[in-house]
Amino acid sequence: MHYIDNEELLNMPSRYRAQMINSLSGFKSANLIGTCNKNGINNLAIFSSVVHLGASPALVGFITRPDNGERHTLDNIKQTKQFTINQVNEEFWQAAHQTSARYNADQCEFEKTDLTPQIIEGINAPFVKESRLKYALTLQEIIPIPLNKTLLVIGKITGIICEQEALKKDGYIDIESLNTIMISGLDSYHTSTRLSRLSYAKTDKKPVPISLNGTSLKNT
Amino acid sequence: MHYIDNEELLNMPSRYRAQMINSLSGFKSANLIGTCNKNGINNLAIFSSVVHLGASPALVGFITRPDNGERHTLDNIKQTKQFTINQVNEEFWQAAHQTSARYNADQCEFEKTDLTPQIIEGINAPFVKESRLKYALTLQEIIPIPLNKTLLVIGKITGIICEQEALKKDGYIDIESLNTIMISGLDSYHTSTRLSRLSYAKTDKKPVPISLNGTSLKNT
Repeated sequence: MHYIDNEELLNMPSRYRAQMINSLSGFKSANLIGTCNKNGINNLAIFSSVVHLGASPALVGFITRPDNGERHTLDNIKQTKQFTINQVNEEFWQAAHQTSARYNADQCEFEKTDLTPQIIEGINAPFVKESRLKYALTLQEIIPIPLNKTLLVIGKITGIICEQEALKKDGYIDIESLNTIMISGLDSYHTSTRLSRLSYAKTDKKPVPISLNGTSLKNT
Repeated sequence: MHYIDNEELLNMPSRYRAQMINSLSGFKSANLIGTCNKNGINNLAIFSSVVHLGASPALVGFITRPDNGERHTLDNIKQTKQFTINQVNEEFWQAAHQTSARYNADQCEFEKTDLTPQIIEGINAPFVKESRLKYALTLQEIIPIPLNKTLLVIGKITGIICEQEALKKDGYIDIESLNTIMISGLDSYHTSTRLSRLSYAKTDKKPVPISLNGTSLKNT
């Protein structure tokens, strides 16, 4: 095993360190965040930092760099208080990556990447039609992280669009069946293969595989 | 596509909603956080909320429930200001899941799950020997999220242990080659298959696959 100490870490070229540090948190979710600005121009951007915060209330957060007038997603969310999160799947992962190019505010990533905006009445932010699991959020809070001037943007989920077949009896959504992909590092994309769901962990016995529906399996 | 509106969401049984909302953020990283309390008892707990915050300084965060005297990881980090994050791989994913059982503070998850503590001089927190990519952190800040009383715990990376073969020329770490696994929902575990790394996105051309080393591929 190779040990990289603090001094070696601090002396790395910045791009090299960015690649390495981005690999450390493990596999990251791949989501497109859809927003709309006050002039009605849709924006779409890939984020790998979407994180579950809680189920009741249903809160999801993501990390963004500071607002410097060039963060269209953040600007738009501040304006409209709404956004959508759309899971990226195997059918459009390259188009999703392309949304990270530095388009101007008046350029629409949907048009540039051939993804399709999907509008639902009452929600002032576009969904991605090609996404098979997506949801609308209302801005709750933007929490500054002074250490590196990033921000944690927190939304409350107000509606979910999902393929019926993927929704299992206990509420679990089989995102593998939706071909949802994930990211490692800054630019590597991956599909998944399920090992198993596992039973709720208890101190007096080992966890056992359970079915996709969350029920116990016979003969295990 | 099935649409779940806000009212349906609010009226769901809480366990059903927990399963569903936990599926929405996409695939989640699987990491074991190692800590040590003031009496020298090691603690190990699985977290699916580890998130990259920045490369310079090298900051990683994770979400934890509030400190109620029963959050051993948080208690220990407050005491020692140190912790380790250890990527979970295919060789010990069931043991990693088992660390989520409600052991008492005087019970050591390493012993209960047959994982092996690895101690490195100068770091007052145990690594998981079986992990193939792991790092030490010093507590920087604990940011409260008043909306649901969770906390964002932020550490600065001070040292990294990684298998040399997985470290690529541009700093990217091939975590797929380390058999790092991921989580969906609350209890489903998955391995990965790489689609590709992609070139840096630019507005005037489409991204193309690049090699594992981050270099351009011929004939693409």
